[in-house]
Amino acid sequence: MKKLMVIGIGAGNPDYITMQAVKALNLVDVFFLMDKGQSKDKLIDLRREICERYISDPDYRFVEAHSPERERGDVDYKASVDDLNLAKQLTFERLINEEMSDGQCGGFLVWGDPALYDSTIRILQAILASGRCVFEFDVIPGITSVQALAAQHKVPLNRIGRSIEITTGRRLAAGQVSEADSLVVMLDAEDSYHQVTDQETEIYWGAYLGTPDEILISGKLKDVADEIERVRKAARLANGWIMDTYLLRKP
Amino acid sequence: MKKLMVIGIGAGNPDYITMQAVKALNLVDVFFLMDKGQSKDKLIDLRREICERYISDPDYRFVEAHSPERERGDVDYKASVDDLNLAKQLTFERLINEEMSDGQCGGFLVWGDPALYDSTIRILQAILASGRCVFEFDVIPGITSVQALAAQHKVPLNRIGRSIEITTGRRLAAGQVSEADSLVVMLDAEDSYHQVTDQETEIYWGAYLGTPDEILISGKLKDVADEIERVRKAARLANGWIMDTYLLRKP
Ligand SMILES: C[S@@+](CC[C@H](N)C(=O)[O-])C[C@H]1O[C@@H](n2cnc3c(N)ncnc32)[C@H](O)[C@@H]1O
Ligand SMILES: C[S@@+](CC[C@H](N)C(=O)[O-])C[C@H]1O[C@@H](n2cnc3c(N)ncnc32)[C@H](O)[C@@H]1O
Repeated sequence: MKKLMVIGIGAGNPDYITMQAVKALNLVDVFFLMDKGQSKDKLIDLRREICERYISDPDYRFVEAHSPERERGDVDYKASVDDLNLAKQLTFERLINEEMSDGQCGGFLVWGDPALYDSTIRILQAILASGRCVFEFDVIPGITSVQALAAQHKVPLNRIGRSIEITTGRRLAAGQVSEADSLVVMLDAEDSYHQVTDQETEIYWGAYLGTPDEILISGKLKDVADEIERVRKAARLANGWIMDTYLLRKP
Repeated sequence: MKKLMVIGIGAGNPDYITMQAVKALNLVDVFFLMDKGQSKDKLIDLRREICERYISDPDYRFVEAHSPERERGDVDYKASVDDLNLAKQLTFERLINEEMSDGQCGGFLVWGDPALYDSTIRILQAILASGRCVFEFDVIPGITSVQALAAQHKVPLNRIGRSIEITTGRRLAAGQVSEADSLVVMLDAEDSYHQVTDQETEIYWGAYLGTPDEILISGKLKDVADEIERVRKAARLANGWIMDTYLLRKP
């Protein structure tokens, strides 16, 4: 039987790694690196750094796979992600079939937590359901960017007894958000916090959380929204890419 | 200056501890243990076990503080939590004033992540705002029960591009939930999943996650709701207490 480990490595700080993840890393024979896009190099470097730091027996190898990119622009979002996941599924099947022998352990190092806006679990479940590969797999949770955001700002995610919504910039921009008084926004390419009408809303914004480039800004939207836009644009220009998350709290 | 560390220790498995938390544990001179209720002994034991396992210099001590209990029964929930937090605030102030000298480091070991349904951060911020104590504090994120739930069931928390709501059993029972197709329910003392009308909804339920007593049940509500109620009741009886969480996913 082949074994796969989907290992959450935390969202930025190498010290976010858990003991459970360290134990899992040490069982892996081959790591599959799937990153793509501009952030690729930094994110792959962090994975290699984590392996070097925490694996005692250097008897493991990396396989970098060409990770297909989602079609951008004026396409249906869900359909383009579905297409992308189908392409990824074929890539994964090839890796499992060609790069692992029976009894071996393969590892996916997932940014943050594998359960949050990541497709690895979904793809592995789809492969198993298709019956085209046979393997066991485990999931190891990791610190998410949402938790990094709250910890660095030293704020609770929820109000007492209230709920939290975690959503995407795309949904916020489209007005598809609930009445939750704590709203966490991820995957926002378009400064969607400008769409929030109540300017008394507090925003806790963080970019490159847990890394040496971390930036934190908080305050009422009316006071800091323009500053965030300015800082965000400059940082993206300087680094070539940005990852940022924010919590919106109603007054 | 006194320094406080609010350290997330993960929600059950001692291996959920992060490297960042291990480093923080090793800086602490005095740990404040605040648990209460029936789960007290097991949860305090886990904290002591974590300290023994991960702290290299045994030059630290524990202070157990009487943690006030929330008033139960027919009282306003928010008001009773507010009262409780005020009482806790006074306890914390006493601990900081009497149990720490200048330059020392105090630690709170928080179950799961300090940002999720936990009052430690809120209380420390309130003490700082009152000006009655002066200290610095840091927050160290930890693996939440929500992440443990998803990892153990090997499911993503969100549907592709969709949002997630995290809420309480109390709110679900009161019908105060949004249209999110992924709903995570915590703090449910009353089997509130029975209130969900669409019986095709999938439930992923987990109790004592990450511990040797872990129980997992999943399926459509129409197929497993009664089983969950039965198993939950029996487990609570056997252990004297229960902690459980679930994800509801609309069809
Ligand atoms: C595809 S999702 C992956 C989320 C990841 N699985 C997690 O647990 O955080 C990528 C989004 O996560 C957020 N993100 C990830 N790492 C971040 C970091 N270090 N700082 C700020 N935001 C981050 C950004 O909103 C980014 O658009
Ligand atoms: C006061 S909240 C604290 C949550 C914690 N800060 C976290 O990050 O998970 C307590 C609730 O968390 C959930 N919970 C905590 N630990 C759990 C575990 N090991 N298994 C299942 N549910 C758990 C239960 O819903 C419980 O009612």
